Amino acid sequence: MNRGKIICVGLGPGDPELMSVKADRLLRNARHVAFFRKRGHPGKARQLVNGMLHAEVTEYPMEYPVTTEIPHDDPRYIAQLSDFYLGWQSRLTELTRSEDVVVLCEGDPFFYGSFMHLYVRLRQASVVLVEVLPGIPGMVGCWHATGIPVTWGDDVMSVLPATLPDAQLRQHMARSDALVIMKVGRHLGRIRGLLTELGKLDQGWLVINGTMADQQVMPLRDAPERCPYFAIVIVHGQGRRPANDM
Amino acid sequence: MNRGKIICVGLGPGDPELMSVKADRLLRNARHVAFFRKRGHPGKARQLVNGMLHAEVTEYPMEYPVTTEIPHDDPRYIAQLSDFYLGWQSRLTELTRSEDVVVLCEGDPFFYGSFMHLYVRLRQASVVLVEVLPGIPGMVGCWHATGIPVTWGDDVMSVLPATLPDAQLRQHMARSDALVIMKVGRHLGRIRGLLTELGKLDQGWLVINGTMADQQVMPLRDAPERCPYFAIVIVHGQGRRPANDM
Ligand SMILES: C[S@@+](CC[C@H](N)C(=O)[O-])C[C@H]1O[C@@H](n2cnc3c(N)ncnc32)[C@H](O)[C@@H]1O
Ligand SMILES: C[S@@+](CC[C@H](N)C(=O)[O-])C[C@H]1O[C@@H](n2cnc3c(N)ncnc32)[C@H](O)[C@@H]1O
Repeated sequence: MNRGKIICVGLGPGDPELMSVKADRLLRNARHVAFFRKRGHPGKARQLVNGMLHAEVTEYPMEYPVTTEIPHDDPRYIAQLSDFYLGWQSRLTELTRSEDVVVLCEGDPFFYGSFMHLYVRLRQASVVLVEVLPGIPGMVGCWHATGIPVTWGDDVMSVLPATLPDAQLRQHMARSDALVIMKVGRHLGRIRGLLTELGKLDQGWLVINGTMADQQVMPLRDAPERCPYFAIVIVHGQGRRPANDM
Repeated sequence: MNRGKIICVGLGPGDPELMSVKADRLLRNARHVAFFRKRGHPGKARQLVNGMLHAEVTEYPMEYPVTTEIPHDDPRYIAQLSDFYLGWQSRLTELTRSEDVVVLCEGDPFFYGSFMHLYVRLRQASVVLVEVLPGIPGMVGCWHATGIPVTWGDDVMSVLPATLPDAQLRQHMARSDALVIMKVGRHLGRIRGLLTELGKLDQGWLVINGTMADQQVMPLRDAPERCPYFAIVIVHGQGRRPANDM
């Protein structure tokens, strides 16, 4: 086993005050910090720790392969992505021969996080210890931004990626009391259409960059046609047995 | 408006190192701290802050009315509970005439939290400012306790209270990729039966007191017949498009 370890830190929804005590301490002391980003972008996770990193830190931006040309389910794309993870697996492993490496992750790393692809590979290889620190998921920051509790009593809550086909979204939207719709971005119009169809438009909220400095919150019916990738639609539960939530 | 305010603090899943930087600071400085508990119990939320409170703190245990005699959907029970919330609404409001009051809540307060019943009343009355601080929900601590990522790519995750009837549990269990089953307690046998029926028993994990000093984690098939109230069953998603989670 290598001497150093890899610690993936969940950064929470955005507000640095919402990071855990442990995450805050690890980040301020880290000497090697890695994070995912798209080419030409600063990287959301990296932006969240602006002003917090140690003066002597070395940074490792892990840039996703450019994919505008190839559709996401093309085998060539999947092979490229696989090479990308393999490359960083060996690079981070190399670094931990002598020191710890901290990997940044928005929200909670185990909840739709990109680090998980490295995690399974690193665990399999078993050359370096990997620790993962929970964070407040983005959706929690988003429902707090609306000021309304999300689930009561016997409510069922479903988390749906907006990237799913209509039929599947419709089924879950109809049957669950509370909804969290992730990865909204260019799917906003479609999501709004489906919720309208099901009579749930007026219960929907759109939260963009929840708890960040540039947070935007609005009823879904007032939302524009398009929104950024860092956006969540929330439909709050009404409580199946509201007086009885013990 | 009163001079003080009411601040409900999400404490996260249990490990004090997982509290937010802001929660930690507020708790250590608070002079008035209120928390729910059952009569004869120390109160889970209160236990989580052991050793953290200020030397000059005054504590306000909010004891639920005893309910062993009356079923939970009996109108008399609902009336008792309503009186209980009304009483504490006026007591806490009184206190905030001069000073802030901190209310403790396990996990995230807006996610099946008891404080929400006070919250809606306090907001309606509009005499005192109420602030609510997000926390890491218990379920997040529980899926980290298993060491396995919970959702990938296009996975749908549903959160189900074990208190729901079989038919509803079965529907969501069959259709969702990842499952979080809350309030397990005496429903454990029934939950296990339903997951077995659906061929999902071998994917299930039971986590008791996740991230606390007395945490227990086990595959669901090895679980005992009964378990405490602070327990969650997790079924991890397998990833609908695992190589493509960007
Ligand atoms: C790949 S997922 C990562 C989720 C992250 N691990 C978490 O726990 O929230 C990216 C999606 O998370 C959602 N998201 C995360 N944080 C958010 C925030 N603060 N505001 C709005 N959306 C957020 C958006 O829907 C975005 O498309
Ligand atoms: C009334 S709900 C409160 C949920 C809380 N507000 C949260 O965000 O997790 C109580 C249920 O939460 C679950 N729970 C919360 N924290 C937990 C933990 N650390 N370990 C296991 N179960 C937990 C249990 O299923 C319990 O029955």
